[in-house]
Amino acid sequence: MKRSESKSYTLREIVERFGGEVIGDSGTAVGQVATLEKGQPGTIAFLANERYLPQARTTRAGAVILAASMRDATDLPRIACDNPYAYFARVSDLLNPPRQPVPGIHETAVTDATARIAEDAEIGPLSAVGRNARIGPGCAVGPGCMIGDNVVLGKGVLLHANVTIYHDCVIGERVILHSGVIIGADGFGLAMGEGEWIKIPQIGRVVIGDNVEVGANTTIDRGAIDDTVIEEGVKLDNQIQIAHNVRVGAHTAIAACAGIAGSAKVGRHCRIGGASGIAGHIVIADHVEISAHTLITKSIEKPGTYTGAYPFDANREWRRNAAQLRRLDELAARVRTLERKLAALERSKS
Amino acid sequence: MKRSESKSYTLREIVERFGGEVIGDSGTAVGQVATLEKGQPGTIAFLANERYLPQARTTRAGAVILAASMRDATDLPRIACDNPYAYFARVSDLLNPPRQPVPGIHETAVTDATARIAEDAEIGPLSAVGRNARIGPGCAVGPGCMIGDNVVLGKGVLLHANVTIYHDCVIGERVILHSGVIIGADGFGLAMGEGEWIKIPQIGRVVIGDNVEVGANTTIDRGAIDDTVIEEGVKLDNQIQIAHNVRVGAHTAIAACAGIAGSAKVGRHCRIGGASGIAGHIVIADHVEISAHTLITKSIEKPGTYTGAYPFDANREWRRNAAQLRRLDELAARVRTLERKLAALERSKS
Amino acid sequence: MKRSESKSYTLREIVERFGGEVIGDSGTAVGQVATLEKGQPGTIAFLANERYLPQARTTRAGAVILAASMRDATDLPRIACDNPYAYFARVSDLLNPPRQPVPGIHETAVTDATARIAEDAEIGPLSAVGRNARIGPGCAVGPGCMIGDNVVLGKGVLLHANVTIYHDCVIGERVILHSGVIIGADGFGLAMGEGEWIKIPQIGRVVIGDNVEVGANTTIDRGAIDDTVIEEGVKLDNQIQIAHNVRVGAHTAIAACAGIAGSAKVGRHCRIGGASGIAGHIVIADHVEISAHTLITKSIEKPGTYTGAYPFDANREWRRNAAQLRRLDELAARVRTLERKLAALERSKS
Repeated sequence: MKRSESKSYTLREIVERFGGEVIGDSGTAVGQVATLEKGQPGTIAFLANERYLPQARTTRAGAVILAASMRDATDLPRIACDNPYAYFARVSDLLNPPRQPVPGIHETAVTDATARIAEDAEIGPLSAVGRNARIGPGCAVGPGCMIGDNVVLGKGVLLHANVTIYHDCVIGERVILHSGVIIGADGFGLAMGEGEWIKIPQIGRVVIGDNVEVGANTTIDRGAIDDTVIEEGVKLDNQIQIAHNVRVGAHTAIAACAGIAGSAKVGRHCRIGGASGIAGHIVIADHVEISAHTLITKSIEKPGTYTGAYPFDANREWRRNAAQLRRLDELAARVRTLERKLAALERSKS
Repeated sequence: MKRSESKSYTLREIVERFGGEVIGDSGTAVGQVATLEKGQPGTIAFLANERYLPQARTTRAGAVILAASMRDATDLPRIACDNPYAYFARVSDLLNPPRQPVPGIHETAVTDATARIAEDAEIGPLSAVGRNARIGPGCAVGPGCMIGDNVVLGKGVLLHANVTIYHDCVIGERVILHSGVIIGADGFGLAMGEGEWIKIPQIGRVVIGDNVEVGANTTIDRGAIDDTVIEEGVKLDNQIQIAHNVRVGAHTAIAACAGIAGSAKVGRHCRIGGASGIAGHIVIADHVEISAHTLITKSIEKPGTYTGAYPFDANREWRRNAAQLRRLDELAARVRTLERKLAALERSKS
Repeated sequence: MKRSESKSYTLREIVERFGGEVIGDSGTAVGQVATLEKGQPGTIAFLANERYLPQARTTRAGAVILAASMRDATDLPRIACDNPYAYFARVSDLLNPPRQPVPGIHETAVTDATARIAEDAEIGPLSAVGRNARIGPGCAVGPGCMIGDNVVLGKGVLLHANVTIYHDCVIGERVILHSGVIIGADGFGLAMGEGEWIKIPQIGRVVIGDNVEVGANTTIDRGAIDDTVIEEGVKLDNQIQIAHNVRVGAHTAIAACAGIAGSAKVGRHCRIGGASGIAGHIVIADHVEISAHTLITKSIEKPGTYTGAYPFDANREWRRNAAQLRRLDELAARVRTLERKLAALERSKS
């Protein structure tokens, strides 16, 4: 854990900011968050799940955030609130404020003379900013980032080290892109002509809304003709592939290693599991949850949870069942035959 | 979409280049491609699928490329041809010509004195070229690219920003590598010796043929002893993993997130679906199509389509069926018992 | 293959270093390793699998490493030993010694004045080293690497080009990180509050033990509160995702494209197949083997092999079986009905 020299806050100061009720000594000061398991005096932990009730009784943390319904789970000074996990997120953000940009362009950065870079933006060492790019106020561009021609970064964008943004892409306000992210590479647009693939120029852009976060090594391809769009508040984990002309609806969260194929439309407030896939041109409704390792091959019109992972087993059991799976259609036919014969027998008997 | 100031062409000029038949006003000029849905005057769209016939009737595009069989799908000026999608690709390329390299080595690039760099090649800012590397005529090396010792880039290679090529690898002519591509990292070669892994030096190379395109963040490992080979005209999408000593046959296309394990041989003109996998040492014939999310565990000798994704379902249905799947071998045994008993009953009855 | 000018060794010199028994002319000198298939005079190949016995009879290699049990598989000069593959690894390492760092900081590198860099370490061109970072003796930092504040690299660490390490992470001795690796990006920590995701600051670190190797474009996220830990001797292939607070036990090997979700604990000496997944908070015992494309959704307490890939088939067969799979619960119910009816018939008959 980072041993930061962060400022401390009393429980009273915290509830003044974020609401909730202090139970116990409201003058208790906390300077860092911790888990119940490893909490020490001076830290604040949280309890959001009954499974951790025993830990709440034994934790050495200085204070605990918990649900009003579990208000008596500990004798420690505590804050009771409606949504302890979200409350914890806010307290952690208070105690661990994001690093602020250090205004200025590093002497080793290569910025085109036509780029417009806000005075208070930070352009890190060994990064490059292309022609007519616009870097908004409060942006921090990490070392080794390559920003193409005409790219627009809104206010307060944070690019970690080694991010790549191709020409013409548009990034909203307060967006965070992690290292290795590639925005705007060409979509996989190919036409087959006489035994060879012909490349289709990818002339669309990537347009990313406000408050989006994109995890390390995730790739979002530019549109073939129209744009690829990531709406506001979307959260993408690492190693995700978003193909050309996909639209991801606002506040949807996608876990690592998922892949969304070309022109698919994912609704708002969806939760897409790790290593899942969505086929091309599929439409997914709002509030859909897709389990990990699931391939969605048809559009989904109703909210709900959808699953398609093979249940794992010890290899010997898996072998037996998988062998039968390859004969399942035949098995079903045999059951039909049995039903027919049995019905005949029953008739003949009566 | 990029609002380029591109040159316009009349339909007459286009068919003079690419063939096909103009129907309607052959003097109609178009300056950009568009979809039927969003086309505007001055743009040219295409119709390759009967599903879009209604859009062809209402499009505001200035002209349409379509199949001869659908020649009356619109009253707009149009070009009828055999393969409208390939034709569209060629027209789009005409209207959106690739950016040409700007000859010269950027002052911030680090090029070894022994590297041989063609006079008309472009070496972007903050890139590095190693000892004895050879950069062919017409190459464009983007910013932040790291090119190892003895690497060879053929004529007209395009490296987008932040590409990495390890020592000794060979890249053919007109190859395009997108950002984040890693060519020639060590294969996963390990021997187990007394409880610890021993690294096997990976001394082969990666050899990439002409006209290959590799998508963002795709990795191609160098061979363990012999080379890893990507033949001419292969198209790789993003986030693909090609292990050591794989050979991918000419003109095969592989969709995003696929993984090809060590020493597998993929045939020519194959189409490999997204997030599919090919096990090590497998041999896949030419003209094989593999569906998305499919794991190929045995060699495939015949052309055709092969599939192995679990069919997704609403979670409740999936749970029920998956529970039975884990008892499928037992179910098959019960059906065999039923068949035996029923046969005995039938015999006793006759 | 690299045509290195490497030093030659006689078989006698080799067994003096690594043990084993020479059969035939112990003065035979070899300067490079090769496969049986492509071996030439002056190279040494290995035979570890009976499948390759025919190649051992016809190889043109100068010498062969083989198991004592196959000592007569060839008439060539040969070394018989217990574990020919591990022996081969050691011989190849002898003939292909790793490139040694060239001490010094390249003039284009950007190193903070507070960073402590060992005198014999190599800092490549266009790389950056942050505040208070410590680079140990014998380290080689490739071109384009970005090393954050307070990062610690132990002795003899090798970073290939374009590696990114976020602030505060700790890398053990003799670790190898391949290009595109991202260590310490934020974990996917989000709390849902009133329809919008709230980011949870990720204040843990990544701590990597000695002798770990990490493949190209693999990502390892920093811990949310406590650390993400990769124990000594772990080998990670390319394109792997390790989420926050995961612990991977010593000497475990994970194949490409696998994903380990948050807080999962993987045991020691495990082998995790390509594109497999491990769900969050799962615990995997030591010596567990997981097959490719398998999703582990429950903790595994016993060593053994676990599998969960759908068996692929020709698309037509797959369609038939998959359709029945979606009715499997119903099929099982029909079998139960048959069993009941048949039992009634049998009873009525007796």
